[in-house]
Amino acid sequence: MSHWILAVERVMAAPPEALYRAWSEPAWLQRWFAPAPWHVVRAELDVRPGGASLVVMGGPNGEEIPCHGVYLEVVPGRRLVMTDAYLRAWEPSPRPFMTLVVTFTPCPGGTHYLAQAHHWSAADMQEHEAMGFHPGWDICTDQLEALVSGGA
Amino acid sequence: MSHWILAVERVMAAPPEALYRAWSEPAWLQRWFAPAPWHVVRAELDVRPGGASLVVMGGPNGEEIPCHGVYLEVVPGRRLVMTDAYLRAWEPSPRPFMTLVVTFTPCPGGTHYLAQAHHWSAADMQEHEAMGFHPGWDICTDQLEALVSGGA
Repeated sequence: MSHWILAVERVMAAPPEALYRAWSEPAWLQRWFAPAPWHVVRAELDVRPGGASLVVMGGPNGEEIPCHGVYLEVVPGRRLVMTDAYLRAWEPSPRPFMTLVVTFTPCPGGTHYLAQAHHWSAADMQEHEAMGFHPGWDICTDQLEALVSGGA
Repeated sequence: MSHWILAVERVMAAPPEALYRAWSEPAWLQRWFAPAPWHVVRAELDVRPGGASLVVMGGPNGEEIPCHGVYLEVVPGRRLVMTDAYLRAWEPSPRPFMTLVVTFTPCPGGTHYLAQAHHWSAADMQEHEAMGFHPGWDICTDQLEALVSGGA
């Protein structure tokens, strides 16, 4: 098996359902998904297999980055899989870059949270890492944890 | 919308369900899927969203070409969507090349059959065309039509 995966893994003191909600409801996603000082300008999520998602991130200087994707697998409360390989079902995007597999598994203390970005090549994975995957996702995951733990 | 699509379209004197069966049951797929003198050596089809498929085509000189894919959308009797972008759910394949959307629509005289190969780039589409998409798929589609029309 070839694997070019970047991942974030953490146990959080919240039920899986709260994490699922934070990923699947626009009003919740907006509160944590972009790493501060960036924020979410727009979030449209059609959470079903084949449904499209559009999240626009806004920067401190008015920059906007639109992120398009399609859900591949939806298991309420437990698992979401989405990819940027399609703009909508099943129109190929200009550049397939990653498939995101997010799982929320009940465990003592709350939820074992795992978000894995699978890439189509080592080069894509390295590019994603160089773009700041780890610091960016760490900030977002802190924001997510604060939100679901009731601290935000 | 960007579209790099190669397609086969035909009205066939058979019900949509027969065409769906010819695409989704290994014993049927084996009878038409490879263009003669090629044949299907092996067909393993897990026909559900996220299910994997493996079809191995064998050539007249003992060549073997394995084709891996994953189903994205399954509507019994009406529609199948699969892609070679994954080897199995959701492991990226070495090279995402196409997404195949096959629809079987009832119409006067039988079924409007449409098989569309969506590519991620113009270059991929041109490569597929140069590989002999049209003559190859015409032979296969003749074989499929003969099978479902009871002539094979």
